[in-house]
Amino acid sequence: MTFIDLRSDTVTKPGPAMRAAMAAAEVGDDVYAEDPTVRDLEEYVADLFGQPFALFTPTGVMANQLAVRLTVPAGGELVLDADAHIVAHEDGAAAAQGGVQTRTTLSPRGLLDPADLARLIRVGNPYTVGTDLVAVEQTHNRGGGSVYPLERLTAIRELVSGYGLPLHCDGARIWNAHVATGTPLRTYGALFDSLGVCLSKGLGAPAGSVLMMPAEYEAEARRMRHRMGGGMRQAGILAAGGRYALEHHVERLAEDHEHARELAVLLRDAGFAVVDPETNIVLVELGERQPDAAAVAERCRAEGVLVSAFGPRLVRLVTHMDVDAAGCARAASAIAQAAKG
Amino acid sequence: MTFIDLRSDTVTKPGPAMRAAMAAAEVGDDVYAEDPTVRDLEEYVADLFGQPFALFTPTGVMANQLAVRLTVPAGGELVLDADAHIVAHEDGAAAAQGGVQTRTTLSPRGLLDPADLARLIRVGNPYTVGTDLVAVEQTHNRGGGSVYPLERLTAIRELVSGYGLPLHCDGARIWNAHVATGTPLRTYGALFDSLGVCLSKGLGAPAGSVLMMPAEYEAEARRMRHRMGGGMRQAGILAAGGRYALEHHVERLAEDHEHARELAVLLRDAGFAVVDPETNIVLVELGERQPDAAAVAERCRAEGVLVSAFGPRLVRLVTHMDVDAAGCARAASAIAQAAKG
Amino acid sequence: MTFIDLRSDTVTKPGPAMRAAMAAAEVGDDVYAEDPTVRDLEEYVADLFGQPFALFTPTGVMANQLAVRLTVPAGGELVLDADAHIVAHEDGAAAAQGGVQTRTTLSPRGLLDPADLARLIRVGNPYTVGTDLVAVEQTHNRGGGSVYPLERLTAIRELVSGYGLPLHCDGARIWNAHVATGTPLRTYGALFDSLGVCLSKGLGAPAGSVLMMPAEYEAEARRMRHRMGGGMRQAGILAAGGRYALEHHVERLAEDHEHARELAVLLRDAGFAVVDPETNIVLVELGERQPDAAAVAERCRAEGVLVSAFGPRLVRLVTHMDVDAAGCARAASAIAQAAKG
Amino acid sequence: MTFIDLRSDTVTKPGPAMRAAMAAAEVGDDVYAEDPTVRDLEEYVADLFGQPFALFTPTGVMANQLAVRLTVPAGGELVLDADAHIVAHEDGAAAAQGGVQTRTTLSPRGLLDPADLARLIRVGNPYTVGTDLVAVEQTHNRGGGSVYPLERLTAIRELVSGYGLPLHCDGARIWNAHVATGTPLRTYGALFDSLGVCLSKGLGAPAGSVLMMPAEYEAEARRMRHRMGGGMRQAGILAAGGRYALEHHVERLAEDHEHARELAVLLRDAGFAVVDPETNIVLVELGERQPDAAAVAERCRAEGVLVSAFGPRLVRLVTHMDVDAAGCARAASAIAQAAKG
Repeated sequence: MTFIDLRSDTVTKPGPAMRAAMAAAEVGDDVYAEDPTVRDLEEYVADLFGQPFALFTPTGVMANQLAVRLTVPAGGELVLDADAHIVAHEDGAAAAQGGVQTRTTLSPRGLLDPADLARLIRVGNPYTVGTDLVAVEQTHNRGGGSVYPLERLTAIRELVSGYGLPLHCDGARIWNAHVATGTPLRTYGALFDSLGVCLSKGLGAPAGSVLMMPAEYEAEARRMRHRMGGGMRQAGILAAGGRYALEHHVERLAEDHEHARELAVLLRDAGFAVVDPETNIVLVELGERQPDAAAVAERCRAEGVLVSAFGPRLVRLVTHMDVDAAGCARAASAIAQAAKG
Repeated sequence: MTFIDLRSDTVTKPGPAMRAAMAAAEVGDDVYAEDPTVRDLEEYVADLFGQPFALFTPTGVMANQLAVRLTVPAGGELVLDADAHIVAHEDGAAAAQGGVQTRTTLSPRGLLDPADLARLIRVGNPYTVGTDLVAVEQTHNRGGGSVYPLERLTAIRELVSGYGLPLHCDGARIWNAHVATGTPLRTYGALFDSLGVCLSKGLGAPAGSVLMMPAEYEAEARRMRHRMGGGMRQAGILAAGGRYALEHHVERLAEDHEHARELAVLLRDAGFAVVDPETNIVLVELGERQPDAAAVAERCRAEGVLVSAFGPRLVRLVTHMDVDAAGCARAASAIAQAAKG
Repeated sequence: MTFIDLRSDTVTKPGPAMRAAMAAAEVGDDVYAEDPTVRDLEEYVADLFGQPFALFTPTGVMANQLAVRLTVPAGGELVLDADAHIVAHEDGAAAAQGGVQTRTTLSPRGLLDPADLARLIRVGNPYTVGTDLVAVEQTHNRGGGSVYPLERLTAIRELVSGYGLPLHCDGARIWNAHVATGTPLRTYGALFDSLGVCLSKGLGAPAGSVLMMPAEYEAEARRMRHRMGGGMRQAGILAAGGRYALEHHVERLAEDHEHARELAVLLRDAGFAVVDPETNIVLVELGERQPDAAAVAERCRAEGVLVSAFGPRLVRLVTHMDVDAAGCARAASAIAQAAKG
Repeated sequence: MTFIDLRSDTVTKPGPAMRAAMAAAEVGDDVYAEDPTVRDLEEYVADLFGQPFALFTPTGVMANQLAVRLTVPAGGELVLDADAHIVAHEDGAAAAQGGVQTRTTLSPRGLLDPADLARLIRVGNPYTVGTDLVAVEQTHNRGGGSVYPLERLTAIRELVSGYGLPLHCDGARIWNAHVATGTPLRTYGALFDSLGVCLSKGLGAPAGSVLMMPAEYEAEARRMRHRMGGGMRQAGILAAGGRYALEHHVERLAEDHEHARELAVLLRDAGFAVVDPETNIVLVELGERQPDAAAVAERCRAEGVLVSAFGPRLVRLVTHMDVDAAGCARAASAIAQAAKG
């Protein structure tokens, strides 16, 4: 059985051209900062966003965690929304490995409201914890691929700057926001003190993320990456895949967005409550009389369609380069069937 | 100059009878669990709340942190409101020393709404952090001594139990809630898996808190208390002060509440925006054209009145046994004067 | 039954004069650094050792842990002997709560040899952890109350200074070293960047330690003490007991040392292998044909004599102000009896 | 200038055949445990050592850290030699990220003596930290590629088992021990509860290690790997390189050992004190009248020879597949020249 895999855009597999690029990559020892393909990728990405410095990491989790620990001391505080990837899907790493306190609030579709943010940011004193870092997520995974409007980000940036604080962006899927809104990457880049982007989700590289940050963090960032177990040697093999993805797979994300919209239409037509997909993520809210998300996911699997149970009654579907419109239609049909009592 | 000190109810000083009780206390080595006065206090407090087991700690911070670490592993999650003492005033200890992630939301007067709480509690899976503990604060310090109505606490307890999770109460000032509402201590005690109460705030003992918890936690709780540096030896000296306070200073909290209401009236009459005091804490919100809280606190100090700058434009006054109605009136007058351009 | 309690010098109980001093203590809120008795004690102790600044802590564990965390960042390294109190009896707090790596070596009687120390200290680089702090313990608990000769400490100080590193002394029982050797307290004080001393062991106060350190650490030290749960309010009650102990119970430690020597003679006469007691701690090594330490301790308890099982075949006896020569003789006799098949 | 790079065996670059294998690898999403090439590699390596389960990790640091955290709780203790890679070259990760205390002793060439180990292992009780894990390193990096004789490892295994404790092996270079001594991999595998092996050092793969452990750890190991930032997606690309290396580059390590011996002869002939190379690592101890290690390394670099300053007066050279006998001779000559006043 051929599977239609909509669990995540991480499941994409490299094609022949990307594989050829990886096989041909010039490499060196990246722990010594001597892998030319890694260095090229880092400079290329930094330049795309107009950022001063970039570092390759094995995963997006490591990129986020590096950014957090470089700016927040143990016992310090990170302010972000309550459904951020950093809070939901990084296994508590900020606290567990960095001693960083998270202070959050519930936000519609995961997008922080500046008024709420103003209430969350605190100036510390000897008796009160103060905020050390603010983070946003663009696009927002648990918000259903929701996109911060540029005005909102600008307001957040101004607010955060008013306190002299740094602003981090978990931009694992910022490429999707860029394609969906037409906002230039450098416009995004100018807003953040640190910015992590993923090569392995919608872009389709096998693995790897890039964290942009101020250049003066380089030594400490390399040290922390090593401590976390991210100091790979000839990482240029992976970096070459990422470079290929950047050059060939960004603009095509528009197709994934189109597929997501089509999925939403099909699912709504089938009677489901669907969170409006702004990019490539479709959230389906199951009703009380339908099977729960785990049951729906299991039934779909039996029909060759893979989806994620994203909450007790929440199903997530993520479109990507390895699924076409026909696959989406097949998925919508399987879900409709599975959700029947 | 005699100071009127309304910075906190922690500033109270022991009187002759409490001092005599401390001087006469029978003691032993509490690291070996052999201090009879400590053991008596622990049993006395546990019995007051109908809880199975109690442990003396040097401070309320340690009581809260013990409760958190006994129930939440590193990388696990504690859900509570964004202004809780644990999040605001314990120097990030849950994350810094226990690796515990906090997931919070902004709540009016710090009191969690069950509907918000339902959105905050998560069931974990291999890819998502799950909730390990929920905490409430009764009364709520940053909420201005606000009191959870019993119905709200009961609803929270049911919700939390529905997930099979434990519920902790930071009850440093639960005595004030008890006196203000008439709710029996055992009614409160029946709601929580762990409950910390302070002997050193409104009750007026020199130092010490008591943490109630399931009896099976005893060995680990003693070990953790030692690790945190809380394994004092002849602690019965302090415990005797706590016991005296429990027997003589609970019901009199009603006077503090009366003083707080009087303060609020005086300050409102003077034109201030005052958060309605439900117990012994009065929050005054300064306007944009008034000096900021730090300036007001400094000016008041020059007049012999001590208050806390609790935020950039927020002043906190806490009534307690060492300040009478005349002192409160003098304080209100000093604040009114200080807040004039 | 009256017990002869030689488990530790922590078991001493305050007498009438010390209790009177505590009952009469002037107090304030020590979290605001306003308890005059605490401040006096801190200055008094700092002056005794010629150190610039001192802070009161509830326990010796907290004093040590504060010193470690003020000077070693998470991921940094503390070099000390493998049997130090910090490594053996603080429940892993340096690593668990501060993220501090300990690098140790086995040393005869716990006293570091400068040649070994030279091999342990490392200068860090991007690929290698470097040493951040060196610690010694005077007297050494697990070494059997062993005393660093002044020449050895001086050599260690020079070695450590050669690397520009700070040197901490866990001086919980430094009073015993002072009395046993006649070395002035200020001579010791001049050797260390930080120095923790205990008021609650041989000196007989109910609880409390004092940590001396550079004055510029004050703000951070107060913050960390609060985070650890050591921010007590009217701590002057305890500080008064400590002050009394300092003024009346230092010189009398010579009696405890005499009792320890007598115990050693009696136990050797009874055929035991006894580590030569240099101060107030006697270690008895049980032979393979004798019951193990736990069994000996249990049998002694049945005879009204309390001793510590300090290892599988190691018994510790600690002399102190609440046990006289007759009590020691009774203890020696009980041990001899208990160790018979 | 062509460089002779003897800084580490991590600098090797993949050749055409290994690259072809990577380019052709079948892949899947390894976070979902669905990458067939990764799964095959894990099973292949587990089978080589007769171990029950294996997990791929981006680096050897992550393999070691996973093993430590899976078996030692925060505040627990890991016993190992003072110069172990875990203590020297992992940036304090065990303490910083896992809260794990390390208790070490100095050992000749890094190889633990069972008698010392017997003194280091402790049985914990409520007042004393107990040992949770013992670790050895085979071959030992800072010991100069030294090899534990099988008898010594067997004695350590018996000692550790006597306490019911697990034994970990940092076997990043266990391939070198296998080739140098002829000891079968399964003989090594039978000795350890967990065993990490590196594909990227002597074996020449671009990146990746494999950690073997009891199968019941799988779920927690995957979770922790994700938390550390090691959850790569289509990691089969790298795993294919590792598999190729295992099939083609193990036996040839004998050449590296031969080159190391030749280097030692040349350097001794040139008057240097050289630690006897047992495998592929050569340590050169510089005399007091020679330039220090950093200066020697810098001068060698100017001559196209790269070596590591491994201590103030210690130079490390590591032979590997990308350096031949002529290169070694050139390196020896450059060092001799560089060390001249």
